[in-house]
Formats: sequence, structure tokens, C-alpha cells
Amino acid sequence: MPSKRKVAILGATGAIGQRYIQLLQGHPWFQIEVLAASERSAGKKYRDACNWTMESELPKEIADMTVADANVEAVQKAGNVDLVFSSLPGDLAGPVEEEFAAAYPVFSKASAHRMETDVPLLIPEVNPDHLALIPVQQKNRGWKGFITTDPNCSTIQMAMTLKPLMQFGLTQVMVTTMQALSGAGYPGVPSLDILDNVVPYIGKEEDKMESESNKILGSFDGKAVHDARFVVSASCNRVHVKDGHLESVFVSLAQNPSVEAVAEAFRSFKGEPQQLKLPSAPENPIVVREEANRPQPRFDRDAGKGMSVSVGRLRKDPLMSLKYMCLGHNTIRGGAGAGVLSAELAVAKGLA
Amino acid sequence: MPSKRKVAILGATGAIGQRYIQLLQGHPWFQIEVLAASERSAGKKYRDACNWTMESELPKEIADMTVADANVEAVQKAGNVDLVFSSLPGDLAGPVEEEFAAAYPVFSKASAHRMETDVPLLIPEVNPDHLALIPVQQKNRGWKGFITTDPNCSTIQMAMTLKPLMQFGLTQVMVTTMQALSGAGYPGVPSLDILDNVVPYIGKEEDKMESESNKILGSFDGKAVHDARFVVSASCNRVHVKDGHLESVFVSLAQNPSVEAVAEAFRSFKGEPQQLKLPSAPENPIVVREEANRPQPRFDRDAGKGMSVSVGRLRKDPLMSLKYMCLGHNTIRGGAGAGVLSAELAVAKGLA
Amino acid sequence: MPSKRKVAILGATGAIGQRYIQLLQGHPWFQIEVLAASERSAGKKYRDACNWTMESELPKEIADMTVADANVEAVQKAGNVDLVFSSLPGDLAGPVEEEFAAAYPVFSKASAHRMETDVPLLIPEVNPDHLALIPVQQKNRGWKGFITTDPNCSTIQMAMTLKPLMQFGLTQVMVTTMQALSGAGYPGVPSLDILDNVVPYIGKEEDKMESESNKILGSFDGKAVHDARFVVSASCNRVHVKDGHLESVFVSLAQNPSVEAVAEAFRSFKGEPQQLKLPSAPENPIVVREEANRPQPRFDRDAGKGMSVSVGRLRKDPLMSLKYMCLGHNTIRGGAGAGVLSAELAVAKGLA
Amino acid sequence: MPSKRKVAILGATGAIGQRYIQLLQGHPWFQIEVLAASERSAGKKYRDACNWTMESELPKEIADMTVADANVEAVQKAGNVDLVFSSLPGDLAGPVEEEFAAAYPVFSKASAHRMETDVPLLIPEVNPDHLALIPVQQKNRGWKGFITTDPNCSTIQMAMTLKPLMQFGLTQVMVTTMQALSGAGYPGVPSLDILDNVVPYIGKEEDKMESESNKILGSFDGKAVHDARFVVSASCNRVHVKDGHLESVFVSLAQNPSVEAVAEAFRSFKGEPQQLKLPSAPENPIVVREEANRPQPRFDRDAGKGMSVSVGRLRKDPLMSLKYMCLGHNTIRGGAGAGVLSAELAVAKGLA
Repeated sequence: MPSKRKVAILGATGAIGQRYIQLLQGHPWFQIEVLAASERSAGKKYRDACNWTMESELPKEIADMTVADANVEAVQKAGNVDLVFSSLPGDLAGPVEEEFAAAYPVFSKASAHRMETDVPLLIPEVNPDHLALIPVQQKNRGWKGFITTDPNCSTIQMAMTLKPLMQFGLTQVMVTTMQALSGAGYPGVPSLDILDNVVPYIGKEEDKMESESNKILGSFDGKAVHDARFVVSASCNRVHVKDGHLESVFVSLAQNPSVEAVAEAFRSFKGEPQQLKLPSAPENPIVVREEANRPQPRFDRDAGKGMSVSVGRLRKDPLMSLKYMCLGHNTIRGGAGAGVLSAELAVAKGLA
Repeated sequence: MPSKRKVAILGATGAIGQRYIQLLQGHPWFQIEVLAASERSAGKKYRDACNWTMESELPKEIADMTVADANVEAVQKAGNVDLVFSSLPGDLAGPVEEEFAAAYPVFSKASAHRMETDVPLLIPEVNPDHLALIPVQQKNRGWKGFITTDPNCSTIQMAMTLKPLMQFGLTQVMVTTMQALSGAGYPGVPSLDILDNVVPYIGKEEDKMESESNKILGSFDGKAVHDARFVVSASCNRVHVKDGHLESVFVSLAQNPSVEAVAEAFRSFKGEPQQLKLPSAPENPIVVREEANRPQPRFDRDAGKGMSVSVGRLRKDPLMSLKYMCLGHNTIRGGAGAGVLSAELAVAKGLA
Repeated sequence: MPSKRKVAILGATGAIGQRYIQLLQGHPWFQIEVLAASERSAGKKYRDACNWTMESELPKEIADMTVADANVEAVQKAGNVDLVFSSLPGDLAGPVEEEFAAAYPVFSKASAHRMETDVPLLIPEVNPDHLALIPVQQKNRGWKGFITTDPNCSTIQMAMTLKPLMQFGLTQVMVTTMQALSGAGYPGVPSLDILDNVVPYIGKEEDKMESESNKILGSFDGKAVHDARFVVSASCNRVHVKDGHLESVFVSLAQNPSVEAVAEAFRSFKGEPQQLKLPSAPENPIVVREEANRPQPRFDRDAGKGMSVSVGRLRKDPLMSLKYMCLGHNTIRGGAGAGVLSAELAVAKGLA
Repeated sequence: MPSKRKVAILGATGAIGQRYIQLLQGHPWFQIEVLAASERSAGKKYRDACNWTMESELPKEIADMTVADANVEAVQKAGNVDLVFSSLPGDLAGPVEEEFAAAYPVFSKASAHRMETDVPLLIPEVNPDHLALIPVQQKNRGWKGFITTDPNCSTIQMAMTLKPLMQFGLTQVMVTTMQALSGAGYPGVPSLDILDNVVPYIGKEEDKMESESNKILGSFDGKAVHDARFVVSASCNRVHVKDGHLESVFVSLAQNPSVEAVAEAFRSFKGEPQQLKLPSAPENPIVVREEANRPQPRFDRDAGKGMSVSVGRLRKDPLMSLKYMCLGHNTIRGGAGAGVLSAELAVAKGLA
């Protein structure tokens, strides 16, 4: 077992930052050393800087920590850290993460670096081999540390279900999402906008879903990742749900497999996190529900402690090959949990 | 202008029945003469038989009416009616509507007779020529009256948007719905099932959407309706919205028209109800929204007094030709308003 | 009938400002001439400055108006106005309203001047005689115009129900509110705060309820208003409702009247707006519901076009004299409608 | 430690029955032996008889159990049980529970026997001495077993906060509740009734709150319980919250203590369950929140695993002595958890 790493969380006061704190309580490998956020929060006690929105209590020792400014100098002054989780807002994340990557392994939930060719866009069960981009990145950029990124929340859960479909010759993916409010952060969506309503628009979300999946499921040839050759079309909606993105997915598969063959592929899907028994790895990355009316956000988002993706309503499609619903916890598997699992994988592989 | 018809409402205590009552208040052509419902309600004052769930007040003169049993003998005893609106539950509607159709024009919101070859499945703006099935039906069945049916609520609004797309060579339709709670009637969906949740299943709804559209958009050759040749795939969900079904639609069009050409086809779409200036006809059957985040149920369901379908987010699709969102009021355009408009059309054409 | 007044709305982009615009569409006495808001909005088209959250469409001619800065000079430059509605935020309202009052009648929804001794805190049905403070105010302050204020939204509806109770010797009022989200303005309450939740705190609301009622129901002796001598205790909560504050009220009445006597006092309550047939006056300021489970926000908030207060569940109380529920539309009777009715009263009395 | 008791759950398919099943998973003292419900469910597998609405998965071994009819003969045939939990509907509970009490200790959540003079109305922290009614009851009725009852859910949490106030001379209690949907069972409240709404009525709830507290806080003189002498007035509302009743409480205390003295009385309150370290006893029966806006249902209902009552906004009242908000989990502390804790207490005292 690796020794305990000291970690900094950049963007610690935001919705994903809070989830990082929650998930890292009692973590066997990681220990929170520094909480960093924007200038506005820096210097305050965490309890005062943050509007804690988790249902669990804010741990007392975290509440008493002083928030550092999210730059290398301030973080180094605040503590001696081994690796960095970043959930900075997209527009800030770019240069700040690069500054940290010169010295530290950075596990980023921000979108800034996702599509750069030497940066892994990682889902540990799906493309652990993409971590081999890290030496390429370090050479390119002259860094001792590195950046690896987690995909967009809606993409992660979909891509996990697409991975076992690749063997059947995946060519087309059509998806309509019904996404939870926590995906918009805090304060996020005003209650007057969403009460008795659905908002059929989430800025840039469709673009992310349509581009990220091909990189994630792309193949690594030792030097670079080559995009997988299927086409994704997405239509994204915000619904009145706290946590848990639900997605209606239609796929074309060249081999046109049976429903049962696909269900079995989902059920038996395992990845390196399961083989390595990483602390945050769910036993089943994909849970297949047999009921006619599942998965449902309130009932299935916590499957595998929020790290499993639930699939249901798998059925033949009159136009494409198959259709199904998938659901994942957007701030755990699609958020802080993604970063924690990525870091666990990196540690297990000796990279961090 | 036609003289005022006396009408009976079968299923008057249900959610759609209540909406019929609301829409017929002050209607220039129709006057409520008899309210009929199941045995359980028969003999009671309407105010006692019904759990009124409309936001408008239950009209006093309606409240005081005695509910008749939903059979021909009882309705005839209760009043002298010219035509019948039926919103009976699907399983009861079949034989009861046939009994009435022997003598009366029956405008049915039930699914029982929708797919029968000599029964129109009518959307007045879309396929008014299908009313020519009525003499065929009367001959087949030896009826003086007739049955004409309204499609399923989710289908109506989608089919209205498909009609102007037919000119571009429509071949494929993929739709994911986010349907309102009122679509399940009353008491309908328990609050504990839908609070902080989405239910990704509505019994038989997908089948209806996948079969009804082809008949609606089919061509009538003087004797029969021949199904339109496109394929529909549907995935249906219940969301936490009171009224207004929102649908994410993807279409393949052989001619691959521009977004603007399609927007213009939507905007300029008119039908017989508009030409005939029927009392319930909206000025614009389809309203095109230009905002990035519309249509939304709470803001757009009442467009055209609930009789217009709102379309928005019209954009090119990487897989099919185009994608867009459409929204309609499920208990007005998709419910009682559909029946009222159908009856207006039949009256205007001298059929009722 | 008075001639049509040209009005300016200060704070026109906010939630109450939008409601003013909606209520003044087609108003027989008032016409919108100038829309004014903070510097941030000034100079923009209203459609661009405002996030329109009313369910009705933003009227086109309003959308195209240019927003003026909320100061006298800018408003005078933008148009020639006769009177001013102010729904400025509390902290800005104070000095700005005074500046306008030097020249214009100002009808204010802000809290800044409510408790000043020479400023009416007006509910037209309850204390129209308090308008006699205006000459006192004008003399005190050397103004040609004046300020009259509307009470806090929760207070208005409660005070309307307290007025007919004064005759029975009102001594104590205990109230727990369940207030709607629109009361917090826009963006207001984050959806993540209120989904599946109640927030038992609204800043300063309890203080307002506990102090304003005594002034409203106080008596005017020709020079000053003397506070009514009852004690109010309030506990205020935010619930998951769009519009309509619901209040659980317990009252002590010295004469201990019967439930029926109080119900009759509520039902027969009328004020000057009804006698003068003011355009926005509801026929019944108080509607008494007999059902066991009313009033309810969604069903009763629009009573009297949002200007009536609904009372129900009137019953004897084991501790005090009586208890009942009351409900009013917080952005109509409790918001812009209050200002419009106040202005109508002032016009009818020759004050504006 | 006592040996493991085998238990039957009467009403096992209902909302409280399901919560019993959930809470008894892995319980150190109790083991589920028989699940019983109405005739309609009897003979079916539990998975088929029940619409499982808990967020946790239905345990597989429970799902496979066959439901017995809720009568003594059927339950005895199904298994050998030591004690009985009853969450039967109020109208059925009366005679069925008596039948069981002839032979078994019955812990009842039903209202049928609550107000009978020889039946304890038990909150283990508040009136454990009332268990001394059991020998009285056994003698009166000739039973080998007995019935002890749990109060109404709204009453339990309020009475827990009243207990530490008794020392200050409690004379009056005024309460307005905002109660969760799960309190109405399943299917319970239709979503169309509560979306964007509050229902200001819950049948018989106010009567229960106004009568039960006096018995609970009454004193036992060795033979009978004498009601405590304070007066309660209640006004009960249903709000859009899944779990967790929130109550706005106003109290008159003869000694008029300081806020801090009362806060300290709440914080230091402990009872026999804490002294006996019963398995389900929370460390703190009452948690005092210092924040301005707590307790809130979504954030505080799970305090003490749903067994603690949270109190906040404790402040002086202008009319009575003090006001505060209290919140409890209505289906744990106010439901199945109450029964489990009562049974634990009875076991610890050698009564079961």
C-alpha cells in the first residue's frame, strides 16, 4: 500500500471542491493539507469562505483551516503537498494548473486542458493506458509534474457505457440528457428558473459531449491518442433534480448484438481500478437494472457510493441498434470522485 | 356560423374531462348538456364526484350538475345532446364509444380506436382530409354517428412539427420526451415518486409515439389511409413539471435543408383551422423561439392559449439532419383542446 | 375618470419592476413612459437589461425601450412623467426616492421610508385616511411631490385580515409564514437551497411583520398616526412555491366573537377602493374559503386577479381566540399591485 | 447484552413498514422473522407485494420472504416470534393489535390505542417511567403480552423539545408545522396536489398534537398517568419536502428563562436511552443549531442517524416567552425509529 499523500484542493469552496473534501474524509491514501480558492476567499477560515451545501456536516478540522490563494507560492507556504486536485472554474484553471504542473501532479476537473493532445482525458476504467501520455507531456513542456484531466460529468457516465459497446462496432451515439442542478454549481440555477420547469440548454455541454468521447475511447499508439471513429450527437437539458444526470442514449452497433449480449457486456465490464482494488473503485462500474422504470436519479445515484453508473431499459431500437437509459452521480463519479479515482490510479502506477 | 351544439362529456370527472369543462366555458359553438362518468360517480353532484384540479374556479352551474352514468341510455335520459366528447380511460372507452357512435358523433381522446383503419386519427392542422374516413366508417359499421380520435398527447405536438418537415423528405425521427405530471391524470404520479427525481418510463407511451405518427401523416387515397414512410424511435420520461411536454427531436431529411429553411417552414405552417378561423385555432400552430434556452414548459405551454406548439433550439445535427426541442400543453393541445378543435372542424365541414 | 398619467418605474428590471410592467399593460389611468434602473442597466434596451421572468410575453414596445438611470435628471431626460413607482432595492431607495419626491408623487415598494412618521404606510382598503399625512410630509420636507409606501408583502395580506378583526378588540397576533420564492427577487433563492427543503429564515422579515402592522392599523388624528395597540409575533419561512405567501395566524380578540361572526366580518369587508371602483380593486378584498384544505398557493393566489386575500380554516383556538390561514399573491397584492392600487387611490383623491 | 429477538412487522409493505425493515438490517438485538400485511399482500413474495420506496436497496433476503396475513394465526404459522412491531393503518390496528397483545409485546405506531389510560404513549427519552403502565394493562386486560404506542410523528419531535422546558414552568405551546410528504405514506400525496403548493390541512393531525403531548409529559403516580397542565394549539401544513417535519414553536414559560438557559437545557438533555446506551439512541437527543437559518429538512433530518431532533432560531418572543424551530425525521424518530427505540428500552428493562 502506498504511503499517505498530502493533497491540495484548488477551488475548495465550490460545489466540486466541497465534494472533494467529503470524499477525502478518512481516505486511506490521501490527506487534505491545503485548501485553496480565489483571492476573495483567501485568508478566511474555510467555514467563513464557503457556503457548505453537502448534506453531511462540514468536518470541524476542515472548517477551521485557513484558505490559501490558488497559486503555487501561496499553496507552498500553506503546506507541503504531494499532489493537487483542481476544480477551479474553467476560465481560471488554464494558467493556474500549468503553474502547478511544473512541480506537482495535477488532477483536474476543469475543461481547460482536456482536449490538448498530450493531456490524458481519463476515466480509470476506460482508458488507463492514456496515462502513458504523461511522460510525453513532461517532455513537451519541461514539467516535473503533470496535468491529467477528468471529462465533463455528462460525458463520463456515457463514455463508461460506450466502452463495452466498442467491441460491437460502435458507430453512432445519440443522447438527450436530463441533468441535475448540482451540475451548475452554487448558487447555480435560480429556483425561479427551474420550479415547474425544464431548461433545454446548458452552455457548451453539447459540444463537450460530442467531442470528448472520441478522445476518451481513442487508442494510444505509444505516442499519441487517435480519436475513436464514432459520431456523437447530444441534446442537453436541466431538470428539477438535485444530483444524478439521467441520459437517454441511442447507439448504432455494426455487429447488431442481442440485448442480452449487451446487458452481459455491461454487467461483466471491469477495469484496472477493479483489478487493482483501488480504494474508490466500485465493485461494478456499471450496474444493470432490470426493472421497467429504472434507473432513477433519487434511487440510483448512490449506487457504488456514487461511483457506479446505472443502466436500464436496454432495448432494441427501430432506427439505430439499441437504446437505453444511463445514470451517474454527477458530482461523485462525474465530479470529485472521478478525480480521486484518477489520482488513486496514478499512485498505483507509480506516477504520483 | 353554426348553431350551438349540446354536448356530453364522457369521463367528465377526470383530468382531461375537467379541462374539457374549462375550455367549453363560453364556447361559441358548444354548450355542456350532460356530464357522464363511471358508475361510482353517477348520481352525484359534479362538485362531489370530482376532485377539481384546475387552477380556475369550478363554475357554479357545472358544480351543481348531476353526473350521469357513461352509457347511452343514461346520457339520453340526462339531456338531449348533439355530440359527445370522450375522455374515458382506455380500457373502458372501446365498447362505450362504439355504443355512442351508433347515434352520435364521438370525439375521443381515448386510445381504444386510434389505430383502426376506418377511424381518423386527427390533428386538424395536419390531416383534416382524414375526416373523409367517416363515411367509410359509417358504411362499414352501419352507424349514424361516428368516432374520430385524437392522438396521444406526446404524439400530437411532435406530429405537428413533422408535418412541415414532410416536404423535405422526412425519413427518420428520434425523440426523447420529458413529460408533465398532468399527463398521468389524477391522482396520477405520487409525489414521493417524482420529488427530486425523473421516472424514465411511461407505459405504452413509446409504442404510441412510434406507431401513431405514421398514420397521422399518412395519405388518404379516397378509401384508406396509407402510412407515411418514416421511422420513429421514442424514449419517454416523466419529469417534475405540472403541464407541458418537452421533447428533444432529431430528424433525418432527405433534402438536407438549411436551418433557416426549416425555421421558415415552421413559422409559415398553417392549416384548415386557421383558414376556417375555427374558434380554438391558434393564429400560429407552431411558434418558433429564437432564444438559446427556449421553449420551456412553464413559459411556453400557454402559447396560443395552450393550442400552439413551441419549437426552439433548431440546429444542424452531426448524425441526422437537424435537431430541435418542441413543447406543447399536454392537456390542452395534447388533450381536451385537441378534441374541441376536432369537433369544430367537423362542425365546419358539416359532419356534426 | 381622470386623464391618463405618464409613469416612470424605478427598479424596472427587477422582479417587482417586471410585475409593474405586466400590471400596467392596458391600464386605463396609467401609461409607462420611462423605465429606470441601476447604472448597470442604464442605456441598454429593456430586453437586454432584464431577465424577464413573467410567464406572459414581454410586450414588444416595452422590450424596445431604453432603460434610464434611476435619477431625476436621467428620468426627466427620458420622458415627461406625472408619477413614479419605485421598486428599488432597499439600500438604494432611500435617497433616490427623496430626490424624486421633491417633484413627483412617489409610490414606493421599498422599505426605506416605511416607518417614518410623516410617510403613509398604505393599504388602500385598510388605512386610506393615512394619505392625509401627505400635506404634513410636504410641509415638513418642502416637497412638491411626496412619498407613500406599501408595506412588506407578508404584512400586507395579514394586515388586510386584521382590519376587520379590530372591531372585536384585537390584542395579540401570532403568525408563522410559508413564503414564496418570488419574494426573494431574481436570481433570489438558489434551487439547491430549496429543493426538498424549507428555509426557516428570511432576513429582517419578522421585524417588519412585527412593526409595520401597528402603524398600518394605527389611527390618524389629523396630524399623526398613532400605532394600534396589539402585539405581533412572527416566524418566517421560505417554501418551495413560486408565488403566494401562506400564513398561519392565531389571534386574541377581547370580545371573543364566534367563528361565524368573524367569517362574516371577513366576507363583508370592503374599503374605499371598492366604493370608488378603482380599476385594480378586487370585488372582494377578502375571500373566505369553506373547504377544509384551502387556501392553497397554487389555487388561490390569483383570486381577484391576485388582489384578493384568501382566508380559510377559520376555527376556534384553544389558547388564543381564533386561528386561520391567509394567502395572498406576494408580487401582486403584496408587490406591484399594491403600488398600482395606492396610486389609483391617490389619483381618485386628487393627490396625484 | 440481551439475546437476539425474532420480530414480526405488521403493515410491512407500507412506508413505515419499509423503514422498519431498513432500520432492522444488522440490528444487534432484533431479527426480522415475519413480514405481515393486509390480505391483499398475503401470500405474495415481499418484492411483489411492496412498492419499495426507500433509497437503499431492498435487501435480497427480505425481498424473497413471503408476506403473511396480519393475524395471530397466520403470523404464528409463518414463524416463531418474540415481539411485534405494528405500523398498521389506524382503522385496522385496533382489534388486530389487541389480538396480538394477548400473547406478544406489541410496539405500535398506530393511533388506535394511544389515548387509552393503561397504554403507554412512549418516547424513551421523555417518559420511560410510563412503561410501568404495562403491568396495570396486563392486569386490566388479562394479557400476557402488552401494547405500547409511539406518538404521532409531529408530536414526538415537539414533545422531545418540550421535556427540557418543563423545568421552566411550561404553560402554553403554539405550533405551526410544515410536514413532509412521507408522513402521508405511499402513494400518499399526489404530485399534482403539492407541486408549487402547500396544503394547509392534514386530517386529525392538529387534534393529535393538541392532546398527545399532555399525556406524554404527564406524571405517573404508580397507577396512572396524569396529564401535564399546559395547553397546545396546532396548525398543520403539508409542504414539498420528502422527509423531515419542520415546526415553528412558540412557548410560554412561567419562569421566563434566558435564551441561553434554554439552549443549555436543550443541549444537555439526555434520557434513559443514552444512559443505557441503547443501540438506536442518538448521542444527543436534541441538537442545537447556532446558524441563523437552521434547522432545515434536507440538511438536518439525518442528524443522529435520523434519531436526533434539531432545534434552531431560539429567540425571545414578544408575546409568549420564546420561539424556536424544531425538526425531526418523521419516518425515523417520528416513525419506525421510535418503535425500535421503544422496543430496545423494553428489552433493556426486561419487559420484552
